Amino acid sequence: MSIKETLAALGVVLPVPPKPLAAYLPAVQLGNLIYSSGQLPLVEGVLMSGGRGKVGRAVTKEEAKMAARQCAINALAAIAACAGDVEKIERIVKVTVFVASDSGFSEQPFVANGASEFFQEVFGENGRHARSAVGVAELPLSASVEVEVVASIKA
Amino acid sequence: MSIKETLAALGVVLPVPPKPLAAYLPAVQLGNLIYSSGQLPLVEGVLMSGGRGKVGRAVTKEEAKMAARQCAINALAAIAACAGDVEKIERIVKVTVFVASDSGFSEQPFVANGASEFFQEVFGENGRHARSAVGVAELPLSASVEVEVVASIKA
Amino acid sequence: MSIKETLAALGVVLPVPPKPLAAYLPAVQLGNLIYSSGQLPLVEGVLMSGGRGKVGRAVTKEEAKMAARQCAINALAAIAACAGDVEKIERIVKVTVFVASDSGFSEQPFVANGASEFFQEVFGENGRHARSAVGVAELPLSASVEVEVVASIKA
Repeated sequence: MSIKETLAALGVVLPVPPKPLAAYLPAVQLGNLIYSSGQLPLVEGVLMSGGRGKVGRAVTKEEAKMAARQCAINALAAIAACAGDVEKIERIVKVTVFVASDSGFSEQPFVANGASEFFQEVFGENGRHARSAVGVAELPLSASVEVEVVASIKA
Repeated sequence: MSIKETLAALGVVLPVPPKPLAAYLPAVQLGNLIYSSGQLPLVEGVLMSGGRGKVGRAVTKEEAKMAARQCAINALAAIAACAGDVEKIERIVKVTVFVASDSGFSEQPFVANGASEFFQEVFGENGRHARSAVGVAELPLSASVEVEVVASIKA
Repeated sequence: MSIKETLAALGVVLPVPPKPLAAYLPAVQLGNLIYSSGQLPLVEGVLMSGGRGKVGRAVTKEEAKMAARQCAINALAAIAACAGDVEKIERIVKVTVFVASDSGFSEQPFVANGASEFFQEVFGENGRHARSAVGVAELPLSASVEVEVVASIKA
């Protein structure tokens, strides 16, 4: 299956990346690498349910895992738009997951799996990546999760 | 205009990167990429006004934006010293902005624009980058902002 | 001395990287770069003494520095396994150190030196890297430190 067919089978429609709000871009290509900007769990410009607040307090870990999946969808959309075609993406190399964490919440890997599993569903073995997951104090718009991605492009 | 002329027009003097305090370097080149170390809002070795404390409490977002700009100046100085000449810098690829955030402060993008806008002023289109902005608990020296940069070098 | 001889002289045995718990890998190679996943201060699958809790409260900065060294050992193990042989590692390029920090603790660079000094002991000049050190709210398993590394491989 092509990536597009896999996404369709998953019921995932890649959004049009939002226009940058400042002097930065949704993603940048350098050689065969594309770096995405940090992506929030936005759906049509609004934080999704479970996408706002501290995980372990306002947001459950299950909700945050779904938010991390949405961040990954948005990161894939940004990378695909930068590459010109989602089929040009070779593999997912590195994923960093920032989780807005209530004091004492230490299940960042559970949350981050929402992004990691999405990439594996879409890219199979090529979706398996190096990953860091950390718990941060606050995120933009009071988001619960932010995900940034480095991907490689086919030669 | 050359980069040096643009910097002069902006009134920016790149500092001499401080000597590393430990077993790390201000910046490292690998192929055509240069990675800067995380840079603090230091001016002549001292945290600038608005460069120390939590943003949203001790430091206003406007002060923190200026601190982010100073971090970007220090990152550019580190990258230029590593490249041997600021004119060798091709583009700014990725910027990560860590903002020491008081509980409830979620305007990290506003703060990060201090770095992003500086790079666009200096490099124009080549200054537009992928970016992540996150709110962290604490930063070295109790700094309000820390910025790290990946840049590319002309072949 | 080879890297293996240096490690032996330091009394360091690289562990077998733990099997990934999810859809990610301990490290990924792309071209001549290897990205490690964020590594925790685990020894045989258990957080070491000083490897759990907030630095500045449950954990002293000296304990956390040793934990950062263990994270670096685990990152080196992951990178060596990915490269196939530790001798193939050319240099350490970038190190990011996340320190779970109690309110008011700002000596993240002291902690991070545990990782930086280890890499310099093992690789000499090639162990000197760009580095960011930040204080985060929470880490997986309530770890005190997490370290991620980008290294380059000999052609």
